[in-house]
Amino acid sequence: MEVFKNIKQDSWTALTKRPTIDKENLNQTVQSILDNVKLNGDDALKSYSKRFDNVDLTEFLVTKSEIEAANKFVSDELKQAISIAKQNIEKFHRSQITNEQIIETTKGVECWRKSVGIEKVGLYIPGGSAPLFSTILMLGIPAKLARCKEVILCTPSNEKGEINPAILYTSNLLGITKIYKIGGAQAIAAMAYGTETVPQVYKIFGPGNQYVTKAKELIQLNGVAIDMPAGPSEVLVIADKTGNPEYIAADLLSQAEHGADSQVVLLSNNETIINQTLTELYKQIVELPRAETAKKVLLNSKAILLNSIDECIAFSNLYAPEHLIVASDFTSDYIENIVNAGSVFLGNYSCESAGDYASGTNHTLPTNGYARNYSGVSLESFQKKITFQKLSKEGIIGIGPSIEIMAEAEELYAHKNAVTVRLKDLKNV
Amino acid sequence: MEVFKNIKQDSWTALTKRPTIDKENLNQTVQSILDNVKLNGDDALKSYSKRFDNVDLTEFLVTKSEIEAANKFVSDELKQAISIAKQNIEKFHRSQITNEQIIETTKGVECWRKSVGIEKVGLYIPGGSAPLFSTILMLGIPAKLARCKEVILCTPSNEKGEINPAILYTSNLLGITKIYKIGGAQAIAAMAYGTETVPQVYKIFGPGNQYVTKAKELIQLNGVAIDMPAGPSEVLVIADKTGNPEYIAADLLSQAEHGADSQVVLLSNNETIINQTLTELYKQIVELPRAETAKKVLLNSKAILLNSIDECIAFSNLYAPEHLIVASDFTSDYIENIVNAGSVFLGNYSCESAGDYASGTNHTLPTNGYARNYSGVSLESFQKKITFQKLSKEGIIGIGPSIEIMAEAEELYAHKNAVTVRLKDLKNV
Repeated sequence: MEVFKNIKQDSWTALTKRPTIDKENLNQTVQSILDNVKLNGDDALKSYSKRFDNVDLTEFLVTKSEIEAANKFVSDELKQAISIAKQNIEKFHRSQITNEQIIETTKGVECWRKSVGIEKVGLYIPGGSAPLFSTILMLGIPAKLARCKEVILCTPSNEKGEINPAILYTSNLLGITKIYKIGGAQAIAAMAYGTETVPQVYKIFGPGNQYVTKAKELIQLNGVAIDMPAGPSEVLVIADKTGNPEYIAADLLSQAEHGADSQVVLLSNNETIINQTLTELYKQIVELPRAETAKKVLLNSKAILLNSIDECIAFSNLYAPEHLIVASDFTSDYIENIVNAGSVFLGNYSCESAGDYASGTNHTLPTNGYARNYSGVSLESFQKKITFQKLSKEGIIGIGPSIEIMAEAEELYAHKNAVTVRLKDLKNV
Repeated sequence: MEVFKNIKQDSWTALTKRPTIDKENLNQTVQSILDNVKLNGDDALKSYSKRFDNVDLTEFLVTKSEIEAANKFVSDELKQAISIAKQNIEKFHRSQITNEQIIETTKGVECWRKSVGIEKVGLYIPGGSAPLFSTILMLGIPAKLARCKEVILCTPSNEKGEINPAILYTSNLLGITKIYKIGGAQAIAAMAYGTETVPQVYKIFGPGNQYVTKAKELIQLNGVAIDMPAGPSEVLVIADKTGNPEYIAADLLSQAEHGADSQVVLLSNNETIINQTLTELYKQIVELPRAETAKKVLLNSKAILLNSIDECIAFSNLYAPEHLIVASDFTSDYIENIVNAGSVFLGNYSCESAGDYASGTNHTLPTNGYARNYSGVSLESFQKKITFQKLSKEGIIGIGPSIEIMAEAEELYAHKNAVTVRLKDLKNV
C-alpha cells in the first residue's frame, strides 16, 4: 500500500482516478453474441453453453425436483443466517414503499404519482466457485416487494449442468422459480430479446464479468433498462485517531479479496493510525486463502495522510466511493458533508460485510465514481412512477388561460386549442 | 386516421409497434463530434456553431446584460402565466421531498437513506422557431429543489447570436444564470467532458433532435447519466361513451402538431365516439397553423374499436403510452388497472396541455414504450440516494454470526474476518 503525505489539493483529482478499462475491443465480440441470440434463440444459447461453459444442455429451465433437491444440501445453519438477512433486507426495503399523496396544486387541479412494479424483470447471478446467493436476496427481495409480476433469474451451471444448491434454495425462498441455466453475455441477450424458453424482460439487474457488463451496456440501446453501469468494487476508509487499526485493516482486506482490480483507499488525518493499519494489514493478509489476490490489490492501493477529517471527506466526495467506512467514534459530526458515496458505514462496528450480507441495506451499489450520479439498488429500482392528474371544471377555468398564453408563446396552437374548446363550453354553461 | 374494428388480441402487439428509427448511421457522425469537442474544447464548439448554426461566436456564455435585456421583451401576460405554472410545478415537485427515516432492522442496527442533489447537472433546450421555456420550468424547478449545486443550460442561438428572451427570462427566474449558446450534439459533448468555458456535469437532461438524442445515448458509455432514452412524442386516448369528441379531437391534434413522427392512438368501446371524433378532427385541423404536420401524423394514426374499456386499458398497457388521456366521467373505475404509462390525464377536463405547461406534473416523460421500464422526470431524477448504516456493539453481536456463516458460504474469508475480529474483541470485554 503506497503512502502519500503532504499532498497538495490540486493533485487530488489525479489520485481519485481509477484505472481505465479498455472495453472497446469487447464491443464486437459481445454484439455478435447479442445478435446471434436475437436471431437464433435457444439454439444460440445451446451452442454458447457448449463453447463457454463446456456443458451440453437440452433444457435451460431448472426443474422443480432440482429445486427440491437443493433444499437438502443447504445446512440449517446457513438457512438460519439467510433467514435473518432476509428479514432485515425486507424490513429496510419495505420502509421504502411510499403512499400516494394527492396534491391539489391549484383549486380543482389534483396531481399524484403511483408507483408500479416493472412488470418483467431479469436477475443475473454470476457463476464461479462461490455461489453469490446474497445477491439474490439483494435483488429478489425488492423485486418481490415492488410486485414485479414476472421475476426470472439466469445463472450459469457447472460442467455437469448443476446449479449451486444455495442459489436454488435462496431463489425458491423468495418465490423465484423461473431459473435458467444460462451465463455470460448470452444470458443478458436471452432476457433482453426473449427466446423460445426465456421470457423477454424490461429491466435487467445484477453483477457479472466484463462480457456481462458490456452486454448490459449494449442492450440499453435497444430500450431495455439496467440497474446501473458497473465497474470494479471499491472501498474508501476515513479514519481519525479513534479508528481501530485492526478493524480498518480487516475491512480493507475484505474489499481486496474481491479481485485484482478492486480499489482500496485509506484516508486519515493521523499518521499513527495509517502506520498501525499497515502493520495490521501485513499481519492479517497471510492468514487469508485469497492472500495472493489481496496482495495484488494492496500494491495498487493508497493510504493518504491529509490535514483534517474535513479534507478527508472532501477528497472522498471527489472520489465518490462505492463503500465509505468512517472509522471513528464521532461520525455524527461528519455525516452532513458526505455527498458522493454509494453506501456509508459509520463507526468502528459497522463493517462493510454487514451491508454486504445482513444489515438490511442493498449491496448493489454504484462503483467507479458513479456514486456522483447514480443511486444504489432500492425498491424504486424495480418500480416506475406514473403521474396522474384530474382537473375539475374549476381547475381548467383556473389554469386554462395561463396554458393558452404559454402554448401560444411556444407556437403550439393545437395545444392552446385543446384548452380553448373546453373554456368556450364552460363559459356557455 | 385509420379505423380498426374486430381486432383479435393476438394482433395487438403488431398494432402497438412504433416505426423503427434507424439510428445506426448517426453513430459515426455523432461520435466524431463528441471526440472533437473532447479533444479541442471551445475551438471545436466555435467551428460547429459556424458550420451548423451559421453563427460566429466569440463567447458562449450569455452575459448579465443580455439576461437583463430579455426581461423587457417578455410580456407581462406571459410572465404572469409562467409564474402560475412555476408555482404549481414547484408545489408538486416539493411534495416529492422525502424525510430521512431511520430503520432499526435489528436491535442495534440502524439503516437509512439520505437524498442528495447531484452536484452538477446540465439542461439542454433545443432551438428552432419557438422557445421551449416550459421545458426550462420542468427541468430547472426540480434541479433547484434537489439543491444541485451547479445547474447549467445549453441552447443554440440564432444566426445573430441571440437567444429567445422567454428562454433567458425563465432561466433567470429560476436562478439559472450559466446559459451557454451551444446547440446540438456538440452541446451534449461540452457538458459531458467540459471545455475551457463549459463546466463538466454529471447528468444531462432535456429533449433534442436525433443528433442530440444519439449524443446523450453515447455519452452514457462515458459514465455521464442522462434523464432517459428518447423517442417521438405520443398520446393514447381511451374514450367511453361519456367522452367528448370535440375535446378528444383537440387533444389528438395537440399531439399531432409536434412533428411528423408523433404517434396518436384512439381506443374506444363505442363506435359512435370514434366516428364523431373523426368528424371533429377534420373540422378542427383546417384551423391550425401546423395543419400540414398534423395531417401527416393522422395518416399514420389509429383509431381502434375494442369490446370494453378493460380491453382498452389492456391494449394501452401493452402500448405503454407517454401520455394517456382517459376521456370519461368514470375514470376512478379505471385507474387501478393502468400499469404502463408516463402520465395519465383523467376525465374530460384534463387535457394533455395542462400537464405540458401548468398543472404541476412534469412533462419530460418516457416515450416509445419506455413507460414500461422508466419513470418521467421528477425531483428524484436530480438526486441520488446514499444509504447509511450504524451498528452498535449489540448490533454486530446480533447479526455478526449470520454474516460469518454467509461470507464463508460465499468463500469470502476476509469478509468473514472483518466480523470475527470485532466479535473477538467484544467477547473479551
